[in-house]
Amino acid sequence: MRETGREIDQLRSIDIQTNFTKHAEGSVLITVGDTKVICNASVEDRVPPFMRGSGKGWITAEYAMLPRATETRNIRESSKGKVSGRTMEIQRLIGRSLRAVVDLDAIGERTVWVDCDVIQADGGTRTASITGAFVAVVHALGKLLEEEKIKSLPITDYLAAISVGVLPDGTEILDLEYSEDAQAHVDMNVVMTGKGEFVELQGTGEEATFTSTQLTKMLALAEKGLKEIFKIQADTIKPYQENIEQS
Amino acid sequence: MRETGREIDQLRSIDIQTNFTKHAEGSVLITVGDTKVICNASVEDRVPPFMRGSGKGWITAEYAMLPRATETRNIRESSKGKVSGRTMEIQRLIGRSLRAVVDLDAIGERTVWVDCDVIQADGGTRTASITGAFVAVVHALGKLLEEEKIKSLPITDYLAAISVGVLPDGTEILDLEYSEDAQAHVDMNVVMTGKGEFVELQGTGEEATFTSTQLTKMLALAEKGLKEIFKIQADTIKPYQENIEQS
Amino acid sequence: MRETGREIDQLRSIDIQTNFTKHAEGSVLITVGDTKVICNASVEDRVPPFMRGSGKGWITAEYAMLPRATETRNIRESSKGKVSGRTMEIQRLIGRSLRAVVDLDAIGERTVWVDCDVIQADGGTRTASITGAFVAVVHALGKLLEEEKIKSLPITDYLAAISVGVLPDGTEILDLEYSEDAQAHVDMNVVMTGKGEFVELQGTGEEATFTSTQLTKMLALAEKGLKEIFKIQADTIKPYQENIEQS
Amino acid sequence: MRETGREIDQLRSIDIQTNFTKHAEGSVLITVGDTKVICNASVEDRVPPFMRGSGKGWITAEYAMLPRATETRNIRESSKGKVSGRTMEIQRLIGRSLRAVVDLDAIGERTVWVDCDVIQADGGTRTASITGAFVAVVHALGKLLEEEKIKSLPITDYLAAISVGVLPDGTEILDLEYSEDAQAHVDMNVVMTGKGEFVELQGTGEEATFTSTQLTKMLALAEKGLKEIFKIQADTIKPYQENIEQS
Amino acid sequence: MRETGREIDQLRSIDIQTNFTKHAEGSVLITVGDTKVICNASVEDRVPPFMRGSGKGWITAEYAMLPRATETRNIRESSKGKVSGRTMEIQRLIGRSLRAVVDLDAIGERTVWVDCDVIQADGGTRTASITGAFVAVVHALGKLLEEEKIKSLPITDYLAAISVGVLPDGTEILDLEYSEDAQAHVDMNVVMTGKGEFVELQGTGEEATFTSTQLTKMLALAEKGLKEIFKIQADTIKPYQENIEQS
Amino acid sequence: MRETGREIDQLRSIDIQTNFTKHAEGSVLITVGDTKVICNASVEDRVPPFMRGSGKGWITAEYAMLPRATETRNIRESSKGKVSGRTMEIQRLIGRSLRAVVDLDAIGERTVWVDCDVIQADGGTRTASITGAFVAVVHALGKLLEEEKIKSLPITDYLAAISVGVLPDGTEILDLEYSEDAQAHVDMNVVMTGKGEFVELQGTGEEATFTSTQLTKMLALAEKGLKEIFKIQADTIKPYQENIEQS
Repeated sequence: MRETGREIDQLRSIDIQTNFTKHAEGSVLITVGDTKVICNASVEDRVPPFMRGSGKGWITAEYAMLPRATETRNIRESSKGKVSGRTMEIQRLIGRSLRAVVDLDAIGERTVWVDCDVIQADGGTRTASITGAFVAVVHALGKLLEEEKIKSLPITDYLAAISVGVLPDGTEILDLEYSEDAQAHVDMNVVMTGKGEFVELQGTGEEATFTSTQLTKMLALAEKGLKEIFKIQADTIKPYQENIEQS
Repeated sequence: MRETGREIDQLRSIDIQTNFTKHAEGSVLITVGDTKVICNASVEDRVPPFMRGSGKGWITAEYAMLPRATETRNIRESSKGKVSGRTMEIQRLIGRSLRAVVDLDAIGERTVWVDCDVIQADGGTRTASITGAFVAVVHALGKLLEEEKIKSLPITDYLAAISVGVLPDGTEILDLEYSEDAQAHVDMNVVMTGKGEFVELQGTGEEATFTSTQLTKMLALAEKGLKEIFKIQADTIKPYQENIEQS
Repeated sequence: MRETGREIDQLRSIDIQTNFTKHAEGSVLITVGDTKVICNASVEDRVPPFMRGSGKGWITAEYAMLPRATETRNIRESSKGKVSGRTMEIQRLIGRSLRAVVDLDAIGERTVWVDCDVIQADGGTRTASITGAFVAVVHALGKLLEEEKIKSLPITDYLAAISVGVLPDGTEILDLEYSEDAQAHVDMNVVMTGKGEFVELQGTGEEATFTSTQLTKMLALAEKGLKEIFKIQADTIKPYQENIEQS
Repeated sequence: MRETGREIDQLRSIDIQTNFTKHAEGSVLITVGDTKVICNASVEDRVPPFMRGSGKGWITAEYAMLPRATETRNIRESSKGKVSGRTMEIQRLIGRSLRAVVDLDAIGERTVWVDCDVIQADGGTRTASITGAFVAVVHALGKLLEEEKIKSLPITDYLAAISVGVLPDGTEILDLEYSEDAQAHVDMNVVMTGKGEFVELQGTGEEATFTSTQLTKMLALAEKGLKEIFKIQADTIKPYQENIEQS
Repeated sequence: MRETGREIDQLRSIDIQTNFTKHAEGSVLITVGDTKVICNASVEDRVPPFMRGSGKGWITAEYAMLPRATETRNIRESSKGKVSGRTMEIQRLIGRSLRAVVDLDAIGERTVWVDCDVIQADGGTRTASITGAFVAVVHALGKLLEEEKIKSLPITDYLAAISVGVLPDGTEILDLEYSEDAQAHVDMNVVMTGKGEFVELQGTGEEATFTSTQLTKMLALAEKGLKEIFKIQADTIKPYQENIEQS
Repeated sequence: MRETGREIDQLRSIDIQTNFTKHAEGSVLITVGDTKVICNASVEDRVPPFMRGSGKGWITAEYAMLPRATETRNIRESSKGKVSGRTMEIQRLIGRSLRAVVDLDAIGERTVWVDCDVIQADGGTRTASITGAFVAVVHALGKLLEEEKIKSLPITDYLAAISVGVLPDGTEILDLEYSEDAQAHVDMNVVMTGKGEFVELQGTGEEATFTSTQLTKMLALAEKGLKEIFKIQADTIKPYQENIEQS
């Protein structure tokens, strides 16, 4: 049992609310414990200059935190006039992950903009963003399908993410909240498809290292947690579920 | 009756949810029709350089919209690397308004940061921000009072804001939603105290003008609406209400 | 009588020098007491991207102060790499005001750039900018008319601005100079047309409020002052005067 | 055999030239095939503000490419006025990796700045940077030791990095050069210590995924390659080698 | 005789108006033909960080053009968010030139800020700036002397600047106006002291070259012109003139 | 004899290594004493917007220093988000100089980008950059000639640069290294063609002046040094040498 009262392989409670705001084609509020992220997917009928004429679409993601999403207030990145390295790293990760399960050829020359805005942070904001963004993108592309702008749902598989890590006492744990993340020696983010294949694997020892054995244990925890998450996602994309499972 | 089904002097339904996020000293989600703004007030135990040693506090505000708060997606200001003129204008307005009803001498060398983040926009985001921010600031200063860091609640009066305007057919109306705002010839924002005094008055004719008679009518509409809003605010600051009325 | 020796409803001496610099289509040096602003209007034969193909023109304004226009030197905004909120607020105000009296359809796909550069500041720089800019724009559009690029002068009315305010002792005064502005509890800028209609009304109490009665008194002072200013403007636009009065 | 003529588990030829420039405390030119990176380590006798008074040191890294390090010229990041997400991601990776093998408490309130500048790029610039930077840091800290500013070499282990990946035909390969990287479905960077523990693991499928089996194969290739690299590093830090092995 | 009606060694008419604006310690409007520059010298009672504790003062210069100082409107550098290379080059030149004739030790830990703002441009704005700035600095330091903050006028000599050039037909000319500058093959700016020594010499062939003979002729023209300018400057600094000639 | 052991008219040893990196059309490492600069010339098949349709080409230069090229580490300009005035001045100088000896009409609508990156600095980095850049440009244009994209080598003459200066004791010297540059009263950079004509002449007295006699002596030293440099350049452009001498 961890200090937070959870088992080492226990996820926090997860809730995914769809149609959260009214303008976005896909809009989700994902809650993972005390972490809350709004994931909006917007469809734009053109692609970035380097892709024009390719007949292919694009998915890109942006990530931000409200200044007081965290325990002490952070300076707004628009006020600083630049986006931090951490933010860039996260938004590149979200974008790459989504592109792995979307058939970009099938969406035509369109861009799907995914905006992940953290309302409240308690660890795991980047993995919650990916998990929520997947649902938002399914809804946005589902809307294109309903409007008959595309012929089938161009989603090749489920996609979700979770963090795993190693506590100072050497225990591997699943789904770190902030108090655990702050002291962990190793922090690993795993992005996986419904078929159990890896999309991204980012393991980091900050002033520490990890062994091959620890890696194996962490990956097992991640896989267990992700299987539970795919089920929660399935409920939120009912109308499109069948299309994904067929693909 | 307007196209939106409201009377010319009818407010949209307003809801103010307090303790919306867990970290901020004061946290409010204000809903005015389809406009939704998170207003977080954060207390920092220091003031900007130009005020150090003055013994006096400061209140400052920042305002932003999520990229897809609007019908079409806006580019994130952090990505553009600069804050737009519109945003600056609004955050200066919110800050000045709040400073008119807070006794800055009484809060000591502290800064209250007010963050207004628009989740969903349908007109009137700046006035909703002021109305919600007032409640968030009362909660944040109330917490200082409970922690005995200050001796009394340094709020001198209620504060709220509403928009009024003139439709192309010449009708003066209260509380413009986006479809009305987009076609209005005149748009005026009125910020008022509970005693009925003006804090800010910003009337603008975009490619149009307005007469003295129209001004009088608009101000009457604003006053009517603001009286209703003060009652809604009162419910959300119950524990502190008495302190404000005494002042 | 005020400390400055002026009556409460007395304007400072105003001078408007036309053809001040040689390159601009309209060039004015406006002097209001010790406040001096160069207002240059430049005509460009294209409009911003969002207006192309509309057949309509655009007017936009920029405002700046020389670093030593003020009592202590200000850091140059080009050195800071960004324009302050105050500057943005002012240049948006100037642009909107001018657009209210110019028939944008009639100028064709042209942009009028108005540059207001404060050489010396002693209060009221934004209102002096508007008053001077109107004359510069009339001259610039007058030149288009002489060159037969447009058929008539697309100016629908006179336009001028003045400040009014409330001193700490409660007196309402007209045309605040810097020493008055620095202590005033209320500061209001009024932009009006020759017909006496409002274009912009911006009243602000910095850490103070104002009543309906005070508003009425301030508006009366503003109207008196603006009538005098329209006469001064009339002398500077002699060749075009008739065209405006007809419209 | 790969198209490049190498075996699937064969490294490119690696050369590490020390004392490459004269000013830096540690200066290395690392050559990995056609990839060439200058790694300079500079010691500064102070730490960033957030660490002052902690008695602890810091290591931070910056990474850049000469505009024509690549096949087509890239715009200089100083000309663009901002650092790209890719650059930020890489410099954060290099810094974190080095901090895992340096005893920051033992270097006192000093900052080691590591500058990795890519002179010529042919794939694997970030892993070459880490491998070269380790040697530069050992030289820089060795100099501190010789000057008796620190008591022992505060390096806890060797550190090197290599890339592995999966070709479109499913083959796992070691040390991707650019032509391979451009077509690979999976790209993984492995940062490891001399004892064989992981410091960083970053596996990425761009529009693709990878299985657990592929992960295992890639990690085995990486380990084989890194063992060879540690031997090459050992030759370049002869005077300090014993100190590291003891720790 | 040149196309402009001037002799090859003839200056344009020069006028230097002192006390041009009221706030600056030294304020000059210099007119050279149709080129007009406001030169303000401001004294600040501190030096930049790198000079603190040195007991020595500093002079620094900034240069800008009003957007419509030129024939076609230039984008304001504050709007672009960065200062151009041309502007930087000029302001560094002005600063260096002034520092050559001011005894920085004698002014104490003070900074003299020199702001050269071009109101109207017709060639030679940088040389006019230097010539005018010298007078503004003498006035500003003269004021310090009158206030007994310094013991003597810390100016070691007169300072002025002029341009010379070579026309396409090979003629060397003095004081190029814009129409000449635009076609000249060689453009040289000469900054000289009253004793006839060089402070700066910047000769440039844009897509052209110049011979040693041409250099000699240009320098002779410059010297002739500068002698005339020193006389004009002398009239504007009457009260301080003696102090300079003694030094 | 100078403190550095060189005669007053003695150059440091110069080495120009061609084909230094593999991607650039022309790539040079120039070594002048301890100053080392990589000069890469890249050919792009288009010109900047203001030149499109002119049929003419363009040459532009960028200059940077590695952070630890100098004795103490400099902050990277990309991290600061802006290019310093010194850098801008230097890259404008390099670009102008090269344009003086290249027939821009003959290269067609192409841009030659010249990147001068200082690896190690010991004075004279801007002159070494020009000398090396000339060779890189000859190689890049030579490649165009070999590919028959142009008809003849569009180089009209040799081009090189050197610094001269005046030591505090009044001695004029050639080719200042850093220890001399730091104390020199006068610093002059001379850019010359093979025929002995001037392209650029930039003489600067920092808090000092220089006489006409000193100018003459410095120019003589520069000419002597440059003649030696042209010979060194000739060896590095053997295949193209004849083409230049004919022109």
